[in-house]
Amino acid sequence: MTDLPTRDRLLEAAAGLFYAEGITAVGVDRICSAAGVSKRSLYALFGTKDALVAASLERFGERIVAGYLPATAMVDGDQPSPREQILGVFTWLESAAATPDYEGCPFVSAATELKDPAHPAAAVAKRFKDRLTAFFESAARSAGAPDPADLAQQLTVVFDGCGDRVVVTGHALNGLPTRMATTLLDAAGVRR
Amino acid sequence: MTDLPTRDRLLEAAAGLFYAEGITAVGVDRICSAAGVSKRSLYALFGTKDALVAASLERFGERIVAGYLPATAMVDGDQPSPREQILGVFTWLESAAATPDYEGCPFVSAATELKDPAHPAAAVAKRFKDRLTAFFESAARSAGAPDPADLAQQLTVVFDGCGDRVVVTGHALNGLPTRMATTLLDAAGVRR
Repeated sequence: MTDLPTRDRLLEAAAGLFYAEGITAVGVDRICSAAGVSKRSLYALFGTKDALVAASLERFGERIVAGYLPATAMVDGDQPSPREQILGVFTWLESAAATPDYEGCPFVSAATELKDPAHPAAAVAKRFKDRLTAFFESAARSAGAPDPADLAQQLTVVFDGCGDRVVVTGHALNGLPTRMATTLLDAAGVRR
Repeated sequence: MTDLPTRDRLLEAAAGLFYAEGITAVGVDRICSAAGVSKRSLYALFGTKDALVAASLERFGERIVAGYLPATAMVDGDQPSPREQILGVFTWLESAAATPDYEGCPFVSAATELKDPAHPAAAVAKRFKDRLTAFFESAARSAGAPDPADLAQQLTVVFDGCGDRVVVTGHALNGLPTRMATTLLDAAGVRR
């Protein structure tokens, strides 16, 4: 990590520690120490801890959503079908949730802990979750679902609620996300 | 609150502040001040902040689950059907989530923030969530669902994921919990 510019080192250290241990629980001293950066530099670059929290979630978030959102729009026949693309998100969730460091959806975790929609990081969290819902809605619309916006909310609920299951119980999901998404897609008539 | 015994005053103050502002964010000084109790008394009664967190979630949790879990087993014909009892939980969720102080499921919130299954409050959180899942499973079994344990997990995911939606977006649920539960009950053949 020491090869990276100061700003990047701080963002990486902050994102990792906040996700693993919590936003309030991790002070700027810990982050500076992990990043090998002075507090003076941290405040010069970010101004406040809140701004660092938001910027680190933004950075971490881009990497996370790149894992589960298809990179390109559905433009030609070689692409997976909308149904396959939607189910792909839940396959990703299942494997992400099986990793030892999984602590639930980082956006849900941040919003849950902050309890303040006006916090800059809560706004970042909402934006990333809205991107997932927008992806579901777009795919559901392409597949001809009668109410794509509602189906998209339902699929987001499955995504987040399954993450909660792992956090609360510590158990593996054993296919639960895919079973639920499949049932909801079938009920909405999304067959392909 | 000043009429209550010291222990109860501390539990009430702690439960309210932890739910509204977060477990790590609220220090024992705030709780003592809100309860009108000395720190010496707090530590004499609970020993550690972690023990107070667990005891306050236990107290708060009993009140919460009393709101959404039917008080008696399904024993006679005058009771609502299993399907009606299950849907009743989601009707409760919808109205709870519409109150201005709603910050999601307190058990999910605690587990999410603590990120430590070994924390005594995480164990309390898991036990209360397991009670909801056990209720769903029992009702689903009474209704003849082919896989009551799986349906119970699915319904718990809906319950928690809908709570997350409110926390992340700040929007009302507009019937989402009931629509999802209805779809899953229908798909599992739970018609009454």
